Amino acid sequence: MSAARDTVTVCEVGPRDGLQMAQGRMATDVKLRWIRQLADAGLREIEVGSFVSPRMIPQMADTGEVVRGVLAIDGLTVCALACNLKGAIAAHDAGAHVVAIPVSVSDTHSRANVNKGTDDQVEMVRGIVDWVRAQARPMRIDVAAATAFGCSMEGDVPRQRVAQVATALAATGVDRIALADTVGYAHPALVRDTVREVQDAIGARLTKLHLHDTMGLGLANALAGLELGIREFDSCLGGLGGCPFAPGASGNIVTEDLVFMLESMGLATGVDLQRLIAARGLLHESLPDEPLRSGVAAAGIPRTFRSNAPVRGL
Amino acid sequence: MSAARDTVTVCEVGPRDGLQMAQGRMATDVKLRWIRQLADAGLREIEVGSFVSPRMIPQMADTGEVVRGVLAIDGLTVCALACNLKGAIAAHDAGAHVVAIPVSVSDTHSRANVNKGTDDQVEMVRGIVDWVRAQARPMRIDVAAATAFGCSMEGDVPRQRVAQVATALAATGVDRIALADTVGYAHPALVRDTVREVQDAIGARLTKLHLHDTMGLGLANALAGLELGIREFDSCLGGLGGCPFAPGASGNIVTEDLVFMLESMGLATGVDLQRLIAARGLLHESLPDEPLRSGVAAAGIPRTFRSNAPVRGL
Repeated sequence: MSAARDTVTVCEVGPRDGLQMAQGRMATDVKLRWIRQLADAGLREIEVGSFVSPRMIPQMADTGEVVRGVLAIDGLTVCALACNLKGAIAAHDAGAHVVAIPVSVSDTHSRANVNKGTDDQVEMVRGIVDWVRAQARPMRIDVAAATAFGCSMEGDVPRQRVAQVATALAATGVDRIALADTVGYAHPALVRDTVREVQDAIGARLTKLHLHDTMGLGLANALAGLELGIREFDSCLGGLGGCPFAPGASGNIVTEDLVFMLESMGLATGVDLQRLIAARGLLHESLPDEPLRSGVAAAGIPRTFRSNAPVRGL
Repeated sequence: MSAARDTVTVCEVGPRDGLQMAQGRMATDVKLRWIRQLADAGLREIEVGSFVSPRMIPQMADTGEVVRGVLAIDGLTVCALACNLKGAIAAHDAGAHVVAIPVSVSDTHSRANVNKGTDDQVEMVRGIVDWVRAQARPMRIDVAAATAFGCSMEGDVPRQRVAQVATALAATGVDRIALADTVGYAHPALVRDTVREVQDAIGARLTKLHLHDTMGLGLANALAGLELGIREFDSCLGGLGGCPFAPGASGNIVTEDLVFMLESMGLATGVDLQRLIAARGLLHESLPDEPLRSGVAAAGIPRTFRSNAPVRGL
């Protein structure tokens, strides 16, 4: 681990990855209040929704309104997910600062999800990059290499293939690439091997890990990534998100516990843990049937905890 | 991490640390069947109970009978906890292979729990060592340095003090020393710093970590220990155990998820994960109100999982 005041970006994906898996539906005005609470807690990057078919994911039908509603929050980087050029155009129209595009490394998974193979998806990303770069307003383009640590359909996903797809994605000119443990099969040794392989191929263009806690290994996997210099992580408040392939399984890694771990280790996230935990209230009120996880929220912040976050005014 | 077929000892402490915190009480015959199932799943070391006052912990009143009932299980190392010489004598009388003695590094915690300070407790351990070594039948003596990563009463526990206590304990002639995260405050950087400090002081006499998952960091902490060569871990099936200082908080690290992580990483535990998960059935049947955790049990063993355990006959 490098210097003590190293910083880490925690990207809250609850409003997107969390709410899209939820049984209930959060009203637009509640989303806007919740996202503001998350930003007030110090989260500087939030994935607020996805521009996908409202017939497929009705919870995301208001994403345009949500993006426009949170753009004014001071210092917040507003991300939105899109699966194709149409979605990316909608994200740009709404004013998103970042569009995040998932591309599955597993060809089978890709065809099952979007009816197109991985190589075709890379070409689709190239089209998005060309379109975005031609616009007057810049927008950051992030790609998440999904099923990078295994696939529920294909099984093992060779790390050489992950590096190959990451290389092709980097060549399209996207800004940042993340590796996503879409089905939760990752373990620390696999994270290490895969991250190293991809770093050898595309260097610092690999910025982020998107991890699930399906097998209870989420934060151990994050630690393995941290040790290789990864400084961006997706996570969900309360570990929202579930796993579409395993009913009852845990979802994304828990923002509260991730922030607790990072800050405890001397890594500055800019997040106020107490305010972050307080933001569970509105989430629970709005979706009372959704189980919220978090060790530190259940046990309470221990007296030995010291944050590295700069003191923030109200 | 060293060679691929490195082995790790997972010591199941569910019958002791788990059941003593449970609301309900498991009958002696159920304990015996459950411990046999755990051993049949490949666990080679099980802490089966504690020789403490049955008035204090009624769930442990049958520990003598339990020890005697499982001694015949082929290849099983039978451990029992004791807090003083009287308990250690009872463990020896019952035929335990190992006596495990907790000594709190935090003086305040020690006085609150056993009405004696840490240094007095080290002297108590010396008395146990002298007594045990004078017996015809040998018995391994393990000490767990409790509150080694922080204390709910004292707050931070300086790692220099942990190393000092570990050194004094090693000098009494005990066989093995573990560091215990009694209240769940540990994080990976603290585990690293403390383990290194204690290794510098007593070398390979530090063998084990006893970790809780209070803040959701249990397996990340285990990974930090693994990376420094620790090859023994305590854990509880279903993450039994809770935290006496935080009602509703998680308990010990989860045996199922720990085994999943270790085996996935190429470390051989000797445990058959499927049989291990099956041993939850009897536990749940006997203590239906006790919440059982485990990512891999909830989500199912992923198709990419390959065990390093030798194939065991029925």
